[in-house]
Amino acid sequence: MSLLIVGTVAFDQIESPFGKTDKILGGAATFIGLAASKLGVDSGIVSVIGGDFPERDFNLLQSKGIDLTGIEKIESGKTFYWSGRYHSNMNSRDTLVTELNVLENFQPVVPEKWKNAEVLMLGNLAPAVQMMVLNQMTRRPKMVVLDTMNFWMDHTLTDLLQVLKHVDVLTINDEEARQLSGEYGMKASAERILQMGPKILIIKRGEYGSLLFKEGEVFFAPALPLDEVVDPTGAGDTFAGGFSGYLAKTMDYSFENLKRAVIYGSTMASFTVQKFGTESLQELTDAELWERLEIFRELTRFDLD
Amino acid sequence: MSLLIVGTVAFDQIESPFGKTDKILGGAATFIGLAASKLGVDSGIVSVIGGDFPERDFNLLQSKGIDLTGIEKIESGKTFYWSGRYHSNMNSRDTLVTELNVLENFQPVVPEKWKNAEVLMLGNLAPAVQMMVLNQMTRRPKMVVLDTMNFWMDHTLTDLLQVLKHVDVLTINDEEARQLSGEYGMKASAERILQMGPKILIIKRGEYGSLLFKEGEVFFAPALPLDEVVDPTGAGDTFAGGFSGYLAKTMDYSFENLKRAVIYGSTMASFTVQKFGTESLQELTDAELWERLEIFRELTRFDLD
Repeated sequence: MSLLIVGTVAFDQIESPFGKTDKILGGAATFIGLAASKLGVDSGIVSVIGGDFPERDFNLLQSKGIDLTGIEKIESGKTFYWSGRYHSNMNSRDTLVTELNVLENFQPVVPEKWKNAEVLMLGNLAPAVQMMVLNQMTRRPKMVVLDTMNFWMDHTLTDLLQVLKHVDVLTINDEEARQLSGEYGMKASAERILQMGPKILIIKRGEYGSLLFKEGEVFFAPALPLDEVVDPTGAGDTFAGGFSGYLAKTMDYSFENLKRAVIYGSTMASFTVQKFGTESLQELTDAELWERLEIFRELTRFDLD
Repeated sequence: MSLLIVGTVAFDQIESPFGKTDKILGGAATFIGLAASKLGVDSGIVSVIGGDFPERDFNLLQSKGIDLTGIEKIESGKTFYWSGRYHSNMNSRDTLVTELNVLENFQPVVPEKWKNAEVLMLGNLAPAVQMMVLNQMTRRPKMVVLDTMNFWMDHTLTDLLQVLKHVDVLTINDEEARQLSGEYGMKASAERILQMGPKILIIKRGEYGSLLFKEGEVFFAPALPLDEVVDPTGAGDTFAGGFSGYLAKTMDYSFENLKRAVIYGSTMASFTVQKFGTESLQELTDAELWERLEIFRELTRFDLD
């Protein structure tokens, strides 16, 4: 039950109607790792950080049982930094600053002990970098999950289409599904994308939940209506961490279990958005997680008779 | 198990990327009545039509077992007519023509035999007209369901707030929920609206499904991802007809049964949008309905263990 995570470990600085943060711990691999760690999975991160990355944050990730030997530290460089501002409706945001820094020339190196991981979670990164990781695996993972975004469709579509041929699960949002497929409807989009390589597609729709597609099957997962969304940053990565972590833990890739994995991912993401950055994930107790999983179960449960 | 339906019986003329219709049978009460008739409910319509309303359409509604004695025919007048064009993404539309005609001075008269109906479905109409119907009931219906839209919030908010005090269930879309409540989030919107009179709120979100709120309870109902949406006209009314018809048939107003009613409404609406106007509802067989109810059941079903 091993999960290899590839993605950014970064600084985020966020403004939302609920406040403004300093530079805080962020990055796709961070959220994925913290979410997966809640499930007690044996996980490791492949990433890169600069000399400015605080020992406190490094220790935090390590304290959660995440193996960090795959994180390269470039002492002379600076850690990837993103700053953004969310609008009052929380559905749109402006990027204020993107400093790639050490990420610019990132050459991922998978530690020997992680080259036969059961599940590989390729967090949102340049598709060429995602491909480099795949190529280093000595055993094809049982499940390769890839997260990506419109930026890579705009700028490196050929690379993206190439890596898609080698993954099992793709996670994107609805606009990205439309862009990638050239189809408007979600069902038509899914059918097109499932011909590009992935056998499974997850379309993330924020407060509207998500759709899980596999050939001939579909699952409509809910999102929990929340009192307040304070900071949506990391919601998609938390989802990816809960999803891939649950699969790595259970090692069951049936459609029934994929549905459960989606519910775990959605449940964890519902915590992330309630506070800034990784605060919710850091504090989350097992009891809170189980309680909310039950709420998710009730949310869509009905009997026809 | 009687259902009284109040709403328009009208002509629609629709353009969508899938084609263009002539003036065809439409109107809120029409869709509501056709949907409810599929459930074998004893139903009647209160509405108004002009001398131009075709006997063919009148006979069609009658042949479905809908009592039409409450439909006033003004021979010298013309039937309400609406024409609209849907854009390629189907999520926005332009109204091309709205001719109120006989609807302009509509004074609803509830036939004696319908004044003690079990369930009252107040389709989208001027709130003052909806109130006139409520005032004619000799027995307070067990369930009063009201559908409305942003137009009435813009122009007759005082009337709308007045009638809301007397209804059990309100059905609106998410933008309307925001407008009526002054809150952005759906949970906060629902809490505010449930203080205005309705004990139950249904927020319709089209392809994203719907939310059913009752004090302290919430149900997240799915929508079926479809190959093609040909014409969304009447989807909300069909939902209202399936919902209120199911309640009238079962006479069970528990939250569990309200959830089932939402699923019936959603299932029927998924047929309506697949063809122009009322065509799908007219052709719908029991077998097709049962089959799709099963699909809805599978759509969100999962087990945590």
